[in-house]
Amino acid sequence: MNLRTEHDTMGDVQVPADKFWGAQTERSRNNFKIGEEASMPKEIIEAFAYLKKAAAFTNAELGVLSIEKRDAIAKVCDEILEGKLADQFPLVIWQTGSGTQSNMNVNEVISNKSHVNSGGKLGEKAEVHPNDDVNKSQSSNDTFPTAMHIAAYKKVVETTIPGVEKLRATLHEKATAFKSIVKIGRTHLMDATPLTLGQEFSGYVAQLDYALKAIKNTLEHLHELALGGTAVGTGLNTPKGYDVLVAKYIADFTGLPFETAPNKFEALAAHDAIVETHGALKQLAVSLYKIAQDIRFLASGPRSGIGEIHIPENEPGSSIMPGKVNPTQNEALTMVCAQVLGNDVTISFAGTQGNYELNVFKPVMAYNFLQSAQLLGDACVSFNDHCAVGIEPNLPRIKELVDKSLMLVTALNTHIGYENAAKIAKTAHKNGTTLKEEAINLGLLTAEQFDEWVKPEDMVGGLK
Amino acid sequence: MNLRTEHDTMGDVQVPADKFWGAQTERSRNNFKIGEEASMPKEIIEAFAYLKKAAAFTNAELGVLSIEKRDAIAKVCDEILEGKLADQFPLVIWQTGSGTQSNMNVNEVISNKSHVNSGGKLGEKAEVHPNDDVNKSQSSNDTFPTAMHIAAYKKVVETTIPGVEKLRATLHEKATAFKSIVKIGRTHLMDATPLTLGQEFSGYVAQLDYALKAIKNTLEHLHELALGGTAVGTGLNTPKGYDVLVAKYIADFTGLPFETAPNKFEALAAHDAIVETHGALKQLAVSLYKIAQDIRFLASGPRSGIGEIHIPENEPGSSIMPGKVNPTQNEALTMVCAQVLGNDVTISFAGTQGNYELNVFKPVMAYNFLQSAQLLGDACVSFNDHCAVGIEPNLPRIKELVDKSLMLVTALNTHIGYENAAKIAKTAHKNGTTLKEEAINLGLLTAEQFDEWVKPEDMVGGLK
Amino acid sequence: MNLRTEHDTMGDVQVPADKFWGAQTERSRNNFKIGEEASMPKEIIEAFAYLKKAAAFTNAELGVLSIEKRDAIAKVCDEILEGKLADQFPLVIWQTGSGTQSNMNVNEVISNKSHVNSGGKLGEKAEVHPNDDVNKSQSSNDTFPTAMHIAAYKKVVETTIPGVEKLRATLHEKATAFKSIVKIGRTHLMDATPLTLGQEFSGYVAQLDYALKAIKNTLEHLHELALGGTAVGTGLNTPKGYDVLVAKYIADFTGLPFETAPNKFEALAAHDAIVETHGALKQLAVSLYKIAQDIRFLASGPRSGIGEIHIPENEPGSSIMPGKVNPTQNEALTMVCAQVLGNDVTISFAGTQGNYELNVFKPVMAYNFLQSAQLLGDACVSFNDHCAVGIEPNLPRIKELVDKSLMLVTALNTHIGYENAAKIAKTAHKNGTTLKEEAINLGLLTAEQFDEWVKPEDMVGGLK
Amino acid sequence: MNLRTEHDTMGDVQVPADKFWGAQTERSRNNFKIGEEASMPKEIIEAFAYLKKAAAFTNAELGVLSIEKRDAIAKVCDEILEGKLADQFPLVIWQTGSGTQSNMNVNEVISNKSHVNSGGKLGEKAEVHPNDDVNKSQSSNDTFPTAMHIAAYKKVVETTIPGVEKLRATLHEKATAFKSIVKIGRTHLMDATPLTLGQEFSGYVAQLDYALKAIKNTLEHLHELALGGTAVGTGLNTPKGYDVLVAKYIADFTGLPFETAPNKFEALAAHDAIVETHGALKQLAVSLYKIAQDIRFLASGPRSGIGEIHIPENEPGSSIMPGKVNPTQNEALTMVCAQVLGNDVTISFAGTQGNYELNVFKPVMAYNFLQSAQLLGDACVSFNDHCAVGIEPNLPRIKELVDKSLMLVTALNTHIGYENAAKIAKTAHKNGTTLKEEAINLGLLTAEQFDEWVKPEDMVGGLK
Repeated sequence: MNLRTEHDTMGDVQVPADKFWGAQTERSRNNFKIGEEASMPKEIIEAFAYLKKAAAFTNAELGVLSIEKRDAIAKVCDEILEGKLADQFPLVIWQTGSGTQSNMNVNEVISNKSHVNSGGKLGEKAEVHPNDDVNKSQSSNDTFPTAMHIAAYKKVVETTIPGVEKLRATLHEKATAFKSIVKIGRTHLMDATPLTLGQEFSGYVAQLDYALKAIKNTLEHLHELALGGTAVGTGLNTPKGYDVLVAKYIADFTGLPFETAPNKFEALAAHDAIVETHGALKQLAVSLYKIAQDIRFLASGPRSGIGEIHIPENEPGSSIMPGKVNPTQNEALTMVCAQVLGNDVTISFAGTQGNYELNVFKPVMAYNFLQSAQLLGDACVSFNDHCAVGIEPNLPRIKELVDKSLMLVTALNTHIGYENAAKIAKTAHKNGTTLKEEAINLGLLTAEQFDEWVKPEDMVGGLK
Repeated sequence: MNLRTEHDTMGDVQVPADKFWGAQTERSRNNFKIGEEASMPKEIIEAFAYLKKAAAFTNAELGVLSIEKRDAIAKVCDEILEGKLADQFPLVIWQTGSGTQSNMNVNEVISNKSHVNSGGKLGEKAEVHPNDDVNKSQSSNDTFPTAMHIAAYKKVVETTIPGVEKLRATLHEKATAFKSIVKIGRTHLMDATPLTLGQEFSGYVAQLDYALKAIKNTLEHLHELALGGTAVGTGLNTPKGYDVLVAKYIADFTGLPFETAPNKFEALAAHDAIVETHGALKQLAVSLYKIAQDIRFLASGPRSGIGEIHIPENEPGSSIMPGKVNPTQNEALTMVCAQVLGNDVTISFAGTQGNYELNVFKPVMAYNFLQSAQLLGDACVSFNDHCAVGIEPNLPRIKELVDKSLMLVTALNTHIGYENAAKIAKTAHKNGTTLKEEAINLGLLTAEQFDEWVKPEDMVGGLK
Repeated sequence: MNLRTEHDTMGDVQVPADKFWGAQTERSRNNFKIGEEASMPKEIIEAFAYLKKAAAFTNAELGVLSIEKRDAIAKVCDEILEGKLADQFPLVIWQTGSGTQSNMNVNEVISNKSHVNSGGKLGEKAEVHPNDDVNKSQSSNDTFPTAMHIAAYKKVVETTIPGVEKLRATLHEKATAFKSIVKIGRTHLMDATPLTLGQEFSGYVAQLDYALKAIKNTLEHLHELALGGTAVGTGLNTPKGYDVLVAKYIADFTGLPFETAPNKFEALAAHDAIVETHGALKQLAVSLYKIAQDIRFLASGPRSGIGEIHIPENEPGSSIMPGKVNPTQNEALTMVCAQVLGNDVTISFAGTQGNYELNVFKPVMAYNFLQSAQLLGDACVSFNDHCAVGIEPNLPRIKELVDKSLMLVTALNTHIGYENAAKIAKTAHKNGTTLKEEAINLGLLTAEQFDEWVKPEDMVGGLK
Repeated sequence: MNLRTEHDTMGDVQVPADKFWGAQTERSRNNFKIGEEASMPKEIIEAFAYLKKAAAFTNAELGVLSIEKRDAIAKVCDEILEGKLADQFPLVIWQTGSGTQSNMNVNEVISNKSHVNSGGKLGEKAEVHPNDDVNKSQSSNDTFPTAMHIAAYKKVVETTIPGVEKLRATLHEKATAFKSIVKIGRTHLMDATPLTLGQEFSGYVAQLDYALKAIKNTLEHLHELALGGTAVGTGLNTPKGYDVLVAKYIADFTGLPFETAPNKFEALAAHDAIVETHGALKQLAVSLYKIAQDIRFLASGPRSGIGEIHIPENEPGSSIMPGKVNPTQNEALTMVCAQVLGNDVTISFAGTQGNYELNVFKPVMAYNFLQSAQLLGDACVSFNDHCAVGIEPNLPRIKELVDKSLMLVTALNTHIGYENAAKIAKTAHKNGTTLKEEAINLGLLTAEQFDEWVKPEDMVGGLK
């Protein structure tokens, strides 16, 4: 491999000749061979591009950076955002906990690429210095958490929420379409009083509504940016007004409502906003698990399960059992939920471990957050498109199961009391007979009374 | 032990003669010998007393219960709330996951005690029937989650939030009092640029403000009550208007703003509100951990640690090392936080496991929630009263540490550039000298320039 | 309340006149009002009694304590072990993380009670000094972890393992009894090829065997005791040979194979043995969850579920639905498992947080460990006695479900190939017909071939 | 893109013309667009290659597969193992929970590639059928868990354990080298009695020894293979002796001691072996966290921290603070530990969720396991090479801190009693003086006695 020499404050380093990164990136690349190369999420790199551009514009507007340097920096940031420099960010999640070398990776690429953009050659001293210019008015300690919030916020509003909303809309349609289909209820997995299939699905819709609201509640904290705090939160080496203005530029460039954090000490030393929003993502995972689990149980069979609904058949389900079809979308979704529950523990743990002026678990928090937000959004869409939209009731089966249920006896409580009703149900259960037969046998009511009082369709609307 | 015979729909059961509970309670007591007796949280029992009274008033107002029975029920509920019947609830958390037998325990105690209250004897048939009267218009499936929300909401607003607010107020006072004390910052545990002790504490205040806001955001979900859904959410066997009215009565009796849940299917089958609020409690635990951890590190010593602050000396710290004093309040608080992180996993796990129309992990969710909310509130008060209020700066130590720090060199970045500044710091570090000496030795600036540019007190206010 | 004055190195303290505890206990009682009083597990107090007695014997044998003091100490320890002093230990879990005040609580009670035992009065100076005599050759830092290991080991071998073994024996009996009952298998919740009910249960037995082995594997670490390390692990202020001998005395007194830890620094600063054994308890919880979950699904119904087995009916299952019976033991057990999963997170988190020479999360680790070990043991016994022993197959239902399954087609793979077999299954599924009908219709085999090749009872024994 | 038509039992599918995969892979690729493409761990694919080859050899040996087909299959397996077909496995983790389509992906690639290897063209019917030949005597349900165990076992013994052992060796060297360096101990973060730096490091070595033992204890379960259970554990469609023989072939091909699982029902329906070994990896993470955390605190400074040891300077530590160096390896390692703690929750949760004959959380369990095992191994090596090997004591600082400590007073307990010793320490602390001065001032001992009794170097060896 061809190499060139780069240097930083620690000395010279050999760098692949065709790469734009510099000495510090290369040091980190060599010092942290942990897991796969380039695992730092690309969303973080993209967020850095937004913030470096915003910092350049702010610095220029506040008179501490020339227009030429601003534009040189902004041009490379745009290239990053266009995906043209995707192979220039080789660092891993498992580096320094402040993400310093990823910040420097961006600084170095911008510096070197701007030099090339202006006709220079790699290895020459660039006009735009990685620290003094690209990183001006910044520290890793405020840029990395800013990148975390930009990336996290974007992912939640662009991927997670739309995914959930799509699924919510489908489930709401189903709840409406199924609103008159009376079916047996089940509590403790055991037969209970009836409800409609639409009511059952309305519960899923309600869960997603609460989850969406919970997520949105947290965005107010997540939209705050640490930038302007620099090294320890005091804003050392920033011009007056910098923090508010740079947040405004980031808001402009991303089209998202970012603002500067009112307390920069909190914003560097803690990552409670990440903990908070991921807590809501975890709640969403809890909700989705229940929904996906219910649907696969309701669809179980085809001959020896519950079988009250049909879900789409998407793939041959078994490499050995011919003709088998499985609830694979539910499985993918529930696996995602399991992942999110674990990610929440990693994030919470990491959140507790800030010390003094800096929490140094930033990359691991960013990684877990972005994974959860992406997977939840994707899995909702996949589950929606390949499962939820195709859910259909199995009407004969639903009717069969509700008709033979013993828990219809509950309708008699208000007429003959709980204890007499229990006697009917227990006798029918023991004898394998129907409620009506035993109700009459026991002399507790007449056939006419039974028919009048025990109507599944009258047992589902008490709340209206 | 003296026994009397009680019966339920399964037959006769021998019950301690002097206890008000009946057959179903006794069955559960015998069938679930898991952990300590009577572990079902007393707050749940109390919440049941509120809701049984509210149900009696609602049933009477809607014409399905006599005024006499209403008053008989209400009288026993008041006795429970006054703590007079504390030894009548022997059941454990680890029973049926719907809490059915704890509901029946309350029903039976109310039934039997009302009979005694009206001059009857235990063992006789009571006028007020546990199922047909006390449980009228109810099911375990809607009462237990209602009791969970009542108990959880009360605990959060009466214990957790006031505890946090008390600590927040003290930390805010400290932040104000310490606002001009310049000290060394630390990032990655390593010396960094200075800030004030007040700024450091302001970060803690900000964390608690965010945590309080996050908790309050969740209360809107938690204040919704399942009552009126009965067995599966349809409200079978409830009179028209029951759900709204019973929530109003509960709100009146508790003085808290409860409302009926708009979707009862969600309210029985999922417990996302518990997941949601506990998620915010977990965030609070994350915040408190950081704060307690920082304070004990800052107070470490007395001779061989950081020692920048003093905390109160409350107990002899060691049974073997004479004169030792330890940050014991911080330890209690951080242990509480560790507990809450685990409780959150239990609650989330349990939250995923609802099936069909009912989540049957209700008691374990209630138990973990109430433990977290209580411990966090208590520990904040304890930490406040016995530690936070007594925090004092160790001014000579603070000055000693800031004065010798090498990271003051950062102030020179904007004058001589990052690389020259690094050279000064590295040389001073290698030689064990001061920044000023090496700055002059290296010919990078004059003594006068150094004194003008490197002033810790000028390095802490960039944000103002 | 009557009070008397006690003092420690910090000064005088007013203590309830009738209690044996002294100044340090009272300080802790007042300074840590977090959760319920006296929450420190009684098993820890009991373990302290064993170790204090062992220390007294060791000190006497090594010539640093008089026989009189040894016997005075041992007598009070025996009283503690007999449960006579149960109300003398008022402290909470949420105290100092070293448990120092609980160690001192024991020291003070022994000192004062021994004084009373010898005819003295409370409030007088006792002959046996709490620090110099009762705590001789000890520190909280080595006694508390020793008490943790004693209590944890005892609980695991006396409660958890016997509970699991009892359940394992019952499930093994069932596996044997059910070995020839051919039933439908289910994968992905969907109908699959058959197996026997005994085979299904044999999987549960295997799970518990692995869990038992995993638990036992960890006991080798757990049986090591920190005692002899004193303050930081060096054994300062202990006589030569003390650590080995005191472990021997503890082994003698408890009848359990304790030994001194080879590295005392690890034993104080880390609690990996607690993490390790609780990890195995967590694995047990994972196994039990699967088992309890399967059994309740298999028993679901009675009319509209799976219903392949019957489980005992122990309590009326619903306060509103007459005659309902629920899998309540399964619910208690699965709630216990959920608790253990959360406890594992608390314990692991706490385990990471040792600093320097001491981990100060000891009480919270002990509490969570003992809760898990107790609940798992109790819940296994409860589940065994009230559910597992009464499991019976529902033979007609089992036969009904296996006979109509489409997955019997798998037996044809080796005769007509996967694709032809799939064609038969899919056609039968579409038409609601039987495999045999469609196999013949499609001309893929004869009726005789079908009857010869597709026999459920021949499909379950491939492994023999 | 050029496409060709493939088909399976559900019909025709268009597949990229240049890829070897078939219809089922393509269906899964289209149906599960969740997260990044091709996220199924490559170690799982490699393990499949081993097992497909072993199955072919076993089938041939047992007379149910021709030698020609065996060799055709084996040849492609070898190509996979050589990495030549790395771009042929596009599926994601988040697919069906049995991993069926990844099994089919391997089957299809082997089938089609073998056809090409023998001169055929893609799109033609291959001699080697993906189900009837490549998958002969197999099901996804037993192959995927077999692949999980192969991959997990290999990763643990080839990456994790060697990494830990390397670090353990270095720490042991340091413990030996530092064995006579007396330093202050710290408990509760506060100054305590002295120990040697070597003793402190010996605790780390002991932790890793326990962790290694715990991991190795679990391997006995992990080395058991499900293969031979086929669809539900009964071994349907396998020839006699298959399961034992196929495990022997896998052992031969991998060089690792795999055996057939004695109970195949457990091996399909539960993944307790994965839970068990990952539990031990989690314990390792707990140990490593403590070690990395201690080392960074001991190295903190350089001027305003503890500073008792030096660690290597590897990168410029700050983009804004010139000359700053941070404990970056410790940060990477502790972030890895945080990840592993979360992964353990995901794995435990997934482990509980098996239903009936199959646990359908296989891919998510495999993914989390392999990530933990890889990261722990890599991070140990990285931490070893770039941090641990370079740890050096800062002797002057160590001496300064031990000399001024007040806790040396503990040596006086056995001479003048705990209370008198406490008086000395407290007075010296209050007055900012030395123990010796105050001991003499208080008249409790002479200067000569003090010098004789209080020697730090005599306080560290009580255990010898």
